[in-house]
Amino acid sequence: MSKKAIILLSGGLDSATTLAIATSQGYSCYAMSIDYNQRHNIELVAAKKIAKLFKVKDFKVVNLDLSWLNSSALINNAIKIPESSSTGIPVTYVPARNTILMSLALAWAENLDCGNIFIGVNAVDYSGYPDCRQEYIDSFQKMVNLATKSGVEGSEIKIHTPLINLSKADIVIKGTKLGVDYSKTISCYQPTPTGLSCAKCDSCRLRKIGFQDAGIMDPTSYVI
Amino acid sequence: MSKKAIILLSGGLDSATTLAIATSQGYSCYAMSIDYNQRHNIELVAAKKIAKLFKVKDFKVVNLDLSWLNSSALINNAIKIPESSSTGIPVTYVPARNTILMSLALAWAENLDCGNIFIGVNAVDYSGYPDCRQEYIDSFQKMVNLATKSGVEGSEIKIHTPLINLSKADIVIKGTKLGVDYSKTISCYQPTPTGLSCAKCDSCRLRKIGFQDAGIMDPTSYVI
Repeated sequence: MSKKAIILLSGGLDSATTLAIATSQGYSCYAMSIDYNQRHNIELVAAKKIAKLFKVKDFKVVNLDLSWLNSSALINNAIKIPESSSTGIPVTYVPARNTILMSLALAWAENLDCGNIFIGVNAVDYSGYPDCRQEYIDSFQKMVNLATKSGVEGSEIKIHTPLINLSKADIVIKGTKLGVDYSKTISCYQPTPTGLSCAKCDSCRLRKIGFQDAGIMDPTSYVI
Repeated sequence: MSKKAIILLSGGLDSATTLAIATSQGYSCYAMSIDYNQRHNIELVAAKKIAKLFKVKDFKVVNLDLSWLNSSALINNAIKIPESSSTGIPVTYVPARNTILMSLALAWAENLDCGNIFIGVNAVDYSGYPDCRQEYIDSFQKMVNLATKSGVEGSEIKIHTPLINLSKADIVIKGTKLGVDYSKTISCYQPTPTGLSCAKCDSCRLRKIGFQDAGIMDPTSYVI
């Protein structure tokens, strides 16, 4: 039987590529998305499509009300999404997001007797979020081994971050080779109700440049 | 202005004492409970009473559906709660529970610009859960500093565990001095619908012995 892996799937370009990589490595994949009252739920629809494309064993959407995290523009609609790059950590930062997501994945991993968690963090073409960096992931890994029954019993749950040192172009090239249909993914922080991407937010800009640098046609539907 | 602190409040004896300690240390206290489809919601009612008793600034109940964590007897009613002590980690273990709880507290801390989180973990009179031990808390603390905007900007969010090395009797003595009304708390893993404690589960047994050893009258209402 192939080894199990949980893949945190947001519906964006990076997590879709991460699922494709885990699948190509022979893992039996379980996808997890979190419905945390994000600004739009188009990304959950995208996650479902990607999970189906890669025939995951199970696709779990966890309901977690984070509407009270009102300091983040990704949750609080009253905060404008920045449309130009800035220095420092942007207002789209969701406090402790990856820690929360990986904690939930960790719980599911123990429940499933699964030794692998994949997360599509990237520390090259990213918005500067602290919880996308290698040193953060390393510290989470150390904590995992002490937090869990599995850890105490000597069977490590490993956090995999296959994209962490790749450029966005490299990610697009890799995913394309592995059959990711990027038209099914959504990266935009503020899509229209019909799912068109703004082309202006940090996430759209990184995605657009990624396709350009990769020399691959960008299948994203942008607002004209 | 006094310093802010978030206190994870389950409605049990330990977390109530922890809130009393944080209050006595002059913190401006914010209580957080998680409605995670635990076996019974009597503990959430207890948490609310305790939060009111100590006049917290805010009491937040986060809704997080963990009903899918069916390996734990605290979530899955089909698993019998053990009524005698055993070796190893018991079936009442909820995978990654403290990691999930502290991650949510961490998010709220950053949102509130709060530098302190209190959790009532105890590694003396406890059920052997891995995420109650000092080395786990230390690793979580290291991770916090790398995970957050606060950490990057140099203002640490500190995890406080004032009970970690106390016996249950010491906890009861301390809380009694600080005005905790333990009749408002509930420790039982399987109370009756009207809130009577079983006196048989691990949590009841540790609580009973704690009051006995402390020489303090146990105000718990047990099933006769």
